[in-house]
Amino acid sequence: MTDSFFASPGSKAEIEEGERLSPKFDADGLVTAVTVDADDGTVLMVAHMDARALALTIETGIAHYYSRSRGKLWKKGEESGHFQTLVELRVDCDQDAVVLRVRMPALGPGVPGAACHTGHRSCFFRSVPLGTAPSPELKLAVNDEGRLFDPAKVYGAPKKTDTPRF
Amino acid sequence: MTDSFFASPGSKAEIEEGERLSPKFDADGLVTAVTVDADDGTVLMVAHMDARALALTIETGIAHYYSRSRGKLWKKGEESGHFQTLVELRVDCDQDAVVLRVRMPALGPGVPGAACHTGHRSCFFRSVPLGTAPSPELKLAVNDEGRLFDPAKVYGAPKKTDTPRF
Repeated sequence: MTDSFFASPGSKAEIEEGERLSPKFDADGLVTAVTVDADDGTVLMVAHMDARALALTIETGIAHYYSRSRGKLWKKGEESGHFQTLVELRVDCDQDAVVLRVRMPALGPGVPGAACHTGHRSCFFRSVPLGTAPSPELKLAVNDEGRLFDPAKVYGAPKKTDTPRF
Repeated sequence: MTDSFFASPGSKAEIEEGERLSPKFDADGLVTAVTVDADDGTVLMVAHMDARALALTIETGIAHYYSRSRGKLWKKGEESGHFQTLVELRVDCDQDAVVLRVRMPALGPGVPGAACHTGHRSCFFRSVPLGTAPSPELKLAVNDEGRLFDPAKVYGAPKKTDTPRF
């Protein structure tokens, strides 16, 4: 069924630089999805899409993913209300990854939307110190202003999160 | 050997919000690496890192990946000269993906560095039209200003590219 959504892969040059969308799904039927804030470019999260999630995202303009941990379609925000509306969808040269430029609903006056199930705006809220070989003692630094929402209030019991990893 | 680079995974809470780096490598021993321009946030490329590539990136501050197609360590720029110098390395909540904020050498006066083996600045130089269900006839649109370098001049014969997919 999903085959009918996309073009059959052509030559390497056609895949890499042509005008047809022929996604290269991996052995699990997935492409990598990188989701960024459409306005300031912050990388919000990395997830995956199967053919159906990709097709629904294109058709509706709302981000859909495939949850590997739950083994099913995952419409981001279906439990939390934290939907992602696409401004642009990009595909890379070998068509095994996409970038979603999105907007998310603000959580309050002056409080931006948040993509991470931990309550942080971005899943990438920790930085790795550079310049020396890593060791188990290495300490990550938090690079944001902390949680924007309380996961317990948004998701209830931990099992109910709509953002399993992933 | 590489085990000694990183902390052993702790509890889910420690992995997701703690201060230890304990990357969750997949069945192939890889994490996903998203590389963005440190200054304007443009997503330049998506690739992968094994433990050694991640450790070298942290130690040297220069981006190293693992080339899946060549099955070996890949120091980006080793053939092209298009190295990537890290400004920041971020890790996501479940520690199976990293974001590299990098700077690349300008290709000339007013010409930014380019990350894609096709000669484009970003691998994500095509956009997917939104709003209707995808079909094989869907046409991608080019969203950048074209090639910034000639791959044949930089890499020579096609086989020599340092950016296999991937």
